This record gives sequence, C-alpha cells and structure tokens, in this order.
Amino acid sequence: MNAATPLPSTALSRDGEATLAAQLAARYAERIEQQLLAPGARLPSVRECARRHTVSPSTVVAAYDQLAAQGLVEARPQRGFFVRGPQSLRRPAQKPPAATGSAPRIRPTDAAAMIRGMFHGVGTPGPGMGTLPPDWLDLPLLNGAMRRAMADDDSALRYGEPAGDLRFRTAFVQRLADIGIAATPAQLLTTMGATQALDVVSRTLTQPGDAVLVDEPGWPIEFARLARLGLRVLPVPRGAQGPDLEVMRALAQAHRPRLYITVSVLHNPTGAMLSLAAAHQVLKLAEAFDFTIVEDDTYAYMAPVHAPRLSALDNLQRSVYLTGFSKILTPNWRVGCIAAAPALTERLIDTRLLGMLSTPTAPERALAVTLEQGSLRRHAERVTARLEAARMRTQRLAQDAGFHFATPPQGLFGWVDTQVDTERLTEAMLDRGWLLAPGTLFHATPRPTTLMRVNFATAQNAALWQTLGEVRRSL
Amino acid sequence: MNAATPLPSTALSRDGEATLAAQLAARYAERIEQQLLAPGARLPSVRECARRHTVSPSTVVAAYDQLAAQGLVEARPQRGFFVRGPQSLRRPAQKPPAATGSAPRIRPTDAAAMIRGMFHGVGTPGPGMGTLPPDWLDLPLLNGAMRRAMADDDSALRYGEPAGDLRFRTAFVQRLADIGIAATPAQLLTTMGATQALDVVSRTLTQPGDAVLVDEPGWPIEFARLARLGLRVLPVPRGAQGPDLEVMRALAQAHRPRLYITVSVLHNPTGAMLSLAAAHQVLKLAEAFDFTIVEDDTYAYMAPVHAPRLSALDNLQRSVYLTGFSKILTPNWRVGCIAAAPALTERLIDTRLLGMLSTPTAPERALAVTLEQGSLRRHAERVTARLEAARMRTQRLAQDAGFHFATPPQGLFGWVDTQVDTERLTEAMLDRGWLLAPGTLFHATPRPTTLMRVNFATAQNAALWQTLGEVRRSL
Repeated sequence: MNAATPLPSTALSRDGEATLAAQLAARYAERIEQQLLAPGARLPSVRECARRHTVSPSTVVAAYDQLAAQGLVEARPQRGFFVRGPQSLRRPAQKPPAATGSAPRIRPTDAAAMIRGMFHGVGTPGPGMGTLPPDWLDLPLLNGAMRRAMADDDSALRYGEPAGDLRFRTAFVQRLADIGIAATPAQLLTTMGATQALDVVSRTLTQPGDAVLVDEPGWPIEFARLARLGLRVLPVPRGAQGPDLEVMRALAQAHRPRLYITVSVLHNPTGAMLSLAAAHQVLKLAEAFDFTIVEDDTYAYMAPVHAPRLSALDNLQRSVYLTGFSKILTPNWRVGCIAAAPALTERLIDTRLLGMLSTPTAPERALAVTLEQGSLRRHAERVTARLEAARMRTQRLAQDAGFHFATPPQGLFGWVDTQVDTERLTEAMLDRGWLLAPGTLFHATPRPTTLMRVNFATAQNAALWQTLGEVRRSL
Repeated sequence: MNAATPLPSTALSRDGEATLAAQLAARYAERIEQQLLAPGARLPSVRECARRHTVSPSTVVAAYDQLAAQGLVEARPQRGFFVRGPQSLRRPAQKPPAATGSAPRIRPTDAAAMIRGMFHGVGTPGPGMGTLPPDWLDLPLLNGAMRRAMADDDSALRYGEPAGDLRFRTAFVQRLADIGIAATPAQLLTTMGATQALDVVSRTLTQPGDAVLVDEPGWPIEFARLARLGLRVLPVPRGAQGPDLEVMRALAQAHRPRLYITVSVLHNPTGAMLSLAAAHQVLKLAEAFDFTIVEDDTYAYMAPVHAPRLSALDNLQRSVYLTGFSKILTPNWRVGCIAAAPALTERLIDTRLLGMLSTPTAPERALAVTLEQGSLRRHAERVTARLEAARMRTQRLAQDAGFHFATPPQGLFGWVDTQVDTERLTEAMLDRGWLLAPGTLFHATPRPTTLMRVNFATAQNAALWQTLGEVRRSL
C-alpha cells in the first residue's frame, strides 16, 4: 500500500467562487489525472489531510466524497480511500460535469452544497445512501411498461395535457382511494418527481419573506430549496408521534407561516409515523393559524396502506398531497403527482406550465400501466418484504454491536443513537471507506448530534457494525 | 343547420375564482353534455353571444376556444363552431383537466390566462398554431431513437447525472460547434425544454424586483413567466434587424436590467433575424450596462447554420445560450439545453437540481442518438425544405388576397400586416371557424394592432386567405 504523494503546499483560496472542498477535490483530481498520484495510492487520512491544508475535517470528507462520486477514488471498507486504476475510471477522458461542485455538508442556505451532497455522498452505495440500491429495482418491469406505453402511441408528436396524462391520473385516483384519499383526476397534476411537486406548491402558495414550518430533522434539500426561494424556514422538532405541537403553536403564533411541509408516513430520516391523535391536533393548528399542510408522501409504497395521512383526514381541504415514484420504482423517470382542492389544482397547473410547459407523457403512461396491471403493487410488496428482512438483520447487527434505535425501526431508514458525535464518527469511518449520513445533515442549522441515519437495505453488513463499534470506542 | 339553444339568462359571476370565459365555457359544456345542445348545433356568433351575456367578444372567443380544445365543439371553415357528435367527443366520459382554465388573451400578469391560451387556441391546428403540425414530425424516427437509447441501458435504476446525460452533452457540443459556439460538455446542462431553461436562468440571475429587457413583440408565455417571478418586464421594440438600440440604451440607463432575453434567429412572432451589426451593438450595450444576454434559440433547426448568434460572437462570456427540440423534433420529450460560462453553469445546475433534481435520461440519450447518427439533421433538412414550399405557397395566396408581410418571410412564422385591427378580424374569423393569432397576443401590454402571426405550415390554404380578404372588407 503506497502512501499518497503529498500535494503542493499552495494554500487553498478562501475568497474564490469554488468552495474549499471543491478546490481540494480539484487539486487531487488533477494529481490523479496527471498520474502524480498512482493507481492504488491511498489518500491521506481525513485528519492528516485537514491538518496539511488547514481546513476542517468535514471539508476533507466533502472533497473525498466528490472524488469518489467522480470515480477517481474508491472507498475500501476497513482501509480508506484509494486512487482507482485507469481502467476503472468511470469517465477517463472527460472531466465530470460536477467536478467543481461543493461540499455535501454545509448550512442549508448554501443550496449548492446541499444538493451536490445528495448526488455525491448520500447517493453512494453504503449505509448513508438515500434510496434503494439499483439492484432492488426491477428493470424488466420498467422496460416492459415503457414499451407497452409507447406502442401505438403518438403522444410524442404534441405537447402533453396541461395537468399531465389523463390515463395516469385516472389510474392514480384508485391508488389514492386505497390510502384513504378521495380525489378526481381533475384534482391531480403531474410534476417531475416529488421535488418539483414541492417546488410548484411552494412557488404557488408563498412569497419571498413568508415563513414556512418544516420538520426537524428533515430533508436537507428541501430546507435548501425553501431558503433559495427567500422563505424563512422554521424547524419544528419531530418526535416519534409527530411534530412538537407546543413549538408548532408558538411558531405559528409568532410568524404566521403559510405552509407546514411534512412527511407523515415513514419520515426521513427518523422513519417515524404520525399518530392519528397528533394528525388531528396538527389539522386544528392549521385551521387556527390558517396555514396549508403540504404532505410529502415520498415513502408511501414502503408503508402499510392504512398509515394515517393528514390529506385523508382533512379531505384535501387545508392539505396538499404529493408523492413520487423515485423511492420504489425508478428515480430516473421523474414522475411526481400532486392532489389538491380543485381551485388550488388549477393554480398549481399554471405554475408548472409557466415553469416548463407540459410533462413528458411516456413515463406517466408507463406508470399508469404499472398501476392498472398491479405490477407496481406487487413490486412494492416484494420490496417491503425484502426490506423487512434487511431491517431485522440490520437491527440485530446494530444491537450486537451495542447501538440502539432512537425511533422504532420501520421503512427504509433507521435513526440510530450512537452516543458519540456522529460528525467525528463519520470522519473516522470515512478513513475506513464507509460513508455515513450523520444527523447534522438533517438539521436546518447544523449542530452536533449523536444520531445518524442508516439505510436498512445497505446497512445489513456485519463488518460495518463491527467497525462502527471499534471506531466508537476509539473516539 | 340548427340554431343554438339559448342558454339560461343567469348572469355570469364577476367575483368568482373562475374567469368569465371559463364560466361561459363551463356553461356551454354542461349544456352539451346534457345534450341540451344537440350534436351539429351551431354556437351563436361571437357578437351575438357577447351581447347575450354582456361580456366582451374576446371573452367569447376564449370560451369557444376552450370548448374546441376540450373537443366539445369543432370549427368548420367558413361556417363557425358546431357541437360535435358523441362519437367524436375526445373525452366522452371524463371532464377534461383544463375545463376551468382561463382566456387565451389577457394581459401577461394574468399568467394563468396566457399559458392556457397556448394549450388552447394557439395550439389548435390552424393559421395561429405555434408549432409544426404533428404530421410534419417523424414518429418512426423518435421511436427508433428511443428504443436504441433504452437497449442495454439501466439508467432508469438511478438518478441521472446532475448536469444531464453526458452522451447527450457530448453530442450536442458538436451541434454547437456547427453554429459557431465553442463549448465543452462541462459548460452544458439539460432542462425540461427551453421553457425550463429560461426559468432556470432567470431564477439564478435575478431577484424579485429586478428589471429584465425583452423583445416586443415576443413570446407571451415568457412575459407571463417573468412577471410571475416578480420581475419588471421592459419591452424593447424588435425590428427586422434587431432590437431598437436607442430604446434599449435608455431603458438600460434608467433601470439597470439584469438580463436581456431575446430570440436572435427566426424571432417569434416576426421571423426576423438579428443582423451582425445589431448583434455587435447589443453586446456593447450589455458590456456598458452590465447585463447578461439570454439567447433563446428555439427555432435553430429551421434556420441556416450561419445565422449570427450573440452567444457565438460573445463566446458565452456575457451571454447564455439555450434551446430545445420541441419545434423541430418532439414537443413531448421536453429536452432543453443551456450553454454558459463554466462558473455560471455550476450555479444553473444547482438551481435545476434544487427545483427537480436530475432530468430523465432516456429522452436525452435518444436525442443523442439522433445527433450522433445525423437523423435529426436530415429530418431538419426535410422539414425546412417542406416549410420553404409552404412559405412560397402561403406568400402567394396572401399576396393574391391583398395582404403583405411586415418582415421578410422566413422560418415557421409570417408577420402579416392586415391593415385592420386584428382583434376584430380574429373575432370575425372565429365565427367562420378559423383561429388566428392576432398581434396583441405578443405584446407585454395588449394594444390594438393591425398585425398577426401566421404559421406557414398551416396557412397554405386558399379558402383561409379568401375568407380573410372578405372579412377584412366587411370590417
């Protein structure tokens, strides 16, 4: 195992456009491309690299993470980061498009950093991953549905319907009925995934300067998106039963928020489910303080159909329901859907039309095929059964290594209390080739926390938990 | 020919959420669905209907237009609007999604109206249409490229690259080189069509309250989109050679705009091409007053490759280039692309990622296939040859009927000076079953004008021009 060639001592620029992490990553990338760092060379440890460049360890973590995402280095469990051989470089001749991106773990006002983080670290297979691994998805199902949708169809020749494909919306009405939400196709509009659904709803219902309630911990990309729209993001602590109602009431009274954006079912990152009692209280607060509830049901297909949803209780009066299919079926087709009261639906359609005109028809129609034929439902049943087994195994491994869960394990994500600072744990684990998702990632304002999110599908690995236990003892 | 059954005399609501046009359309739709208006019945003339409901003729035009878009009535050249038979109803059992939309011709601050207008009137086959008719596009080409892109590809299983498919970007770099723009794949990002490209650029480079220069006449959806972002839209008169430079200078001095958004090549609606001399002056103004030029090259494939582009002159320093494939290949795939300076590209990627994460890979890769194999180029050559013939024929018909063109006929659109008010002409033509695109549609603030836009592909009809001549004499 070679030691890494030291980098030149030129200081990183602190006033340039690129973040320190991006500069550091670019510097290593250049060395690797010039073969000054040979294939197989080990990168310095996070602490050593931080000392050498007088940057924080989290900047180094971000930089290594970017290099891994670019395919220039690879993580080797138990050992650290190594330069990949030329034959294994993902894009040998071409500079990767995201080469000058930014760090994955910076405050949410730094939108650039947050979103790049998602496409780097948290998206890399490993316990910190934010989706199902690709091999849990069903490519033949997807290709079959797409072929069927395209057969005898000439929708490519014209713009799609303003609200999205009617066949999809009609099929999705049945799915909504299954989870207790009564809506007609005219109350639905399609979007490019749940993220654009959130964007369309917040652009329609807020003005810059408005206050918005969010769950904390929560989805950092969403915090960044809201901050970018000029909104004041007000975090409400999210517990196992739901949001802290006293905090919510006080914030609502003081700031008169326009929206409360929440994941009721299988909340990210805690996996918690909103209780019926809490749902009722949240709706009463929304009524009293006149805010709209935006219910993001991204994990719907990994939950039991009877899980309580605010939109079902409220019948889409004060609530807007939105979801996507990235977590269960395909992250790439980018099909999302919003259900809302009829008058609001028209306004949402206008926002989406102005921002991009209509949506592509083929993926929506292919999704309609999977809904109509039940293949999506059967796929979801297979995934949830497999996930349950993964969860049991991960839970056992975690317990054996002396870790416990802060909320009852459910769905895709576990919320683990490590009892040590998880930023430090993340740095130390990175030196051993494991990418974690420390709790601070999920806070609107980063703060030290002993919690971390694990993906049950990718954390059922004995070596991982053994290493976690060893590293924890060493901190 | 039956006379239409009179509607009940209940007055339309002037304070409701729905526009008068939407209410009027809904009232007729109900009658038609209840068969109180029998198939084959003729709707009252625009003037008669306006009188009966004490609304303006343009409200009636909008309502009839919506009914036509919903497939409930059909336009019959020379005769007017007729209720369609049940067998010919496009969506017999289902209320159409856009049933409660608004009028196509309202001031741009009424974003709803503008955008619905595009999906109704101007999209209906006829001389006012804004795209090529579907039968001018090549479905086998599209399906073949999509099949090839999907074969042996598992990109559906993960998010796409942050900047968009690298294969597409690499292929598009060559196309950019052909039109004189030097860029690397790292300077490109994909979007959902040119409209989202405009949205991403303006969200990245402006704040609410900022001033933005636009061409007038211009694309009304764009005016509406900018107004919705809280921007001050400053129209610059667009002539045959380019923008009025004196007006541009005065506005730049007074308002310090952040952007000038323009279609240099085959400008919509006039078809005009920016001259090289004007391009040089525009770049000098951008330099002097520090604004960015956003060059929307939507009609690129209908123009000669040597048409001068600001982005080529400027080498993407002060300019951002964007385009889409809706006009030449398919409006439904929604593939657009932006080329910009490297640092700006990174910021644009962040905006697009925050708004919707990554784009779908399959249509981008299918487009890459059409670029790599030259099938897009050959298709574009066929279309432009056919369009040239259509243009010659339309031009002859127009001249024979006594109409002349305000700018030299080029590309898809002709800009016709009718010498009568084209709003009145539009109303009268609608009674005869023809949907026009009057000049007032293309103004940031609607005003009477004698100009109208015709689509050369759909205006090569002797009966149309004969009727236009007759109606003009009758006004």
